[in-house]
Amino acid sequence: MRGAVMHAPGDVRVQDREAPRIVEPTDAVIRVEAACVCGSDLWPYRGVEELPWPAPMGHEYVGIVEEVGNAVETVKPGQFVVGSFWATDNTCAICRAGYQSACVNRVPMGALGAQAELLRVPLADGTLIATPDVPPDDLVPSLLSASDVLGTGWFGAVAAEAGPGKTVAVVGDGAVGLLAVLAAKQLGAKRIIAMSRHESRQRLAREFGATDIVAERGDAGVAAIKELTDGLGAHSIVEAVGTQESMNQALHAVRPGGHVGFVGVAHGVSLDGMDLFWSLAHVHGGPAPVRRFLPELLELIWTRQIDPGKVFDLQLPLEQAADGYRAMDEREAIKTLLKP
Amino acid sequence: MRGAVMHAPGDVRVQDREAPRIVEPTDAVIRVEAACVCGSDLWPYRGVEELPWPAPMGHEYVGIVEEVGNAVETVKPGQFVVGSFWATDNTCAICRAGYQSACVNRVPMGALGAQAELLRVPLADGTLIATPDVPPDDLVPSLLSASDVLGTGWFGAVAAEAGPGKTVAVVGDGAVGLLAVLAAKQLGAKRIIAMSRHESRQRLAREFGATDIVAERGDAGVAAIKELTDGLGAHSIVEAVGTQESMNQALHAVRPGGHVGFVGVAHGVSLDGMDLFWSLAHVHGGPAPVRRFLPELLELIWTRQIDPGKVFDLQLPLEQAADGYRAMDEREAIKTLLKP
Repeated sequence: MRGAVMHAPGDVRVQDREAPRIVEPTDAVIRVEAACVCGSDLWPYRGVEELPWPAPMGHEYVGIVEEVGNAVETVKPGQFVVGSFWATDNTCAICRAGYQSACVNRVPMGALGAQAELLRVPLADGTLIATPDVPPDDLVPSLLSASDVLGTGWFGAVAAEAGPGKTVAVVGDGAVGLLAVLAAKQLGAKRIIAMSRHESRQRLAREFGATDIVAERGDAGVAAIKELTDGLGAHSIVEAVGTQESMNQALHAVRPGGHVGFVGVAHGVSLDGMDLFWSLAHVHGGPAPVRRFLPELLELIWTRQIDPGKVFDLQLPLEQAADGYRAMDEREAIKTLLKP
Repeated sequence: MRGAVMHAPGDVRVQDREAPRIVEPTDAVIRVEAACVCGSDLWPYRGVEELPWPAPMGHEYVGIVEEVGNAVETVKPGQFVVGSFWATDNTCAICRAGYQSACVNRVPMGALGAQAELLRVPLADGTLIATPDVPPDDLVPSLLSASDVLGTGWFGAVAAEAGPGKTVAVVGDGAVGLLAVLAAKQLGAKRIIAMSRHESRQRLAREFGATDIVAERGDAGVAAIKELTDGLGAHSIVEAVGTQESMNQALHAVRPGGHVGFVGVAHGVSLDGMDLFWSLAHVHGGPAPVRRFLPELLELIWTRQIDPGKVFDLQLPLEQAADGYRAMDEREAIKTLLKP
């Protein structure tokens, strides 16, 4: 089968890979209907993160079940399924507490390479959810987004305790940040401030529910948030970038007692203890436990209450995956969908 | 009047100071019945923190109201009062949200010097609470503890979401850590692990409700907590030291989705972004909003349901304040009470 493999920073090739098969009785193998390139795939692409090269790529997927192991009970061949970017048992104490991304038996889907024609999904019962039917084509991008980027933005908004009466600011206008805006809106936030300096992303943020746009960054961005909030800071901040500047921006723009939800992978970032101490903020984040939110998100998408698939502004055949990486790296595209 | 003044690290003198008087109509002046030395007073004492020398010392106090400004409505001369280490209006949006320690009009009581015969308390209505009567002598230490050290330990336990069914570990066996044990017990925690290597402090921790003692520190301490919690880590960790080692210990010993409440003043500490990300912990702390808890704490003390005053294992006349600092610095005493 064909699949995307990164050979070195900047070097993504679609090539023949060995077709996956059932290894454990809890596995499923799916025929991938759509996969995509994640903002986190850009870290190794840019040489910021090492991978064991050559590395099969991709951890976001939807598809049709081809085959299941004999211990799998909840999904069957022919069903359309969505799963998180972690395979998880969904039964351990950590999963039951809603932190499936730290499941004691978790398997990172990235290691299996979802940007491919076929994909093995370990722990299928705890990982996959079947939709009521095979979806119409126009729902596929939104369902795919639930696999990571919507679930991650949603977790950011939940971690930031976005909700009724709250002013929520979102740092970062990538797909995750934009979907955190959508999540904050769904969670009932009163005011949603998107921090973005790109006109097309500002427009999408407004479509998703942003009430205000702040184009400034750093201290000027913090000052702008303060000005919009009686000098107090926002109740909730979603940090969806993962740099020192964005984390500081979040910590300085939240009001005392407020909540910072951070979902940007924190590369080379540290939080100053005194800063954190005096901010009196709640800070929570990490790899999103998407599986916790998946049933609710699929319902919202299936009933067309939300349209998160709009973050895909570039669709390419899998064979052109390299172009999809390049477009995101150069910020020509927000997010690239790949059709095997 | 007489009051303690720090002239340089290690140099505390009790000397004549100008007696405070009403400055603002919202002020009260109280005759201090008891004050004490705080763990945080040891930072300048040890030369870790600069003060504008010479600095009047002390921010914990109970006393009898001598005089009030003409805008003060809730306390009157002759009443016995307890207040937090921040003077606060208790009416601004931040106070109403329960974060009085970040009140927009806050005044640090430390700048006024509570280790003295008389003390001016700004924003008296928002800061002081009168007890039902002048208390018997044996309740004074416990009431004094509510001014900071009990309220701070309590905040640590609340920030760590200690509660029924939870396993709570407390890093630090100073007065704040010991009272976090007491707080966790009151909040209904199922299992309370005190991290302490001092026999007398272990004993007090057990008296306050600790079910387990871990004497190891650092990685060995983390491993011990994991071993007590099926390898998962504690649900709640209270960090009550404020060093890099103690903060790392907290972050590494909490289970994914668990809560770290930190109340140690974080000197020279930073949190690694990746560590925080992968821990999936909630982190919350800072200067305790003691005023939020004060009514409840005074009720528990007045009705003798808790006896937090046990943390005072040294009582000295104010004139011997220097000995009180020295004893705490050398860890001969957990906490020193000073009687003017």
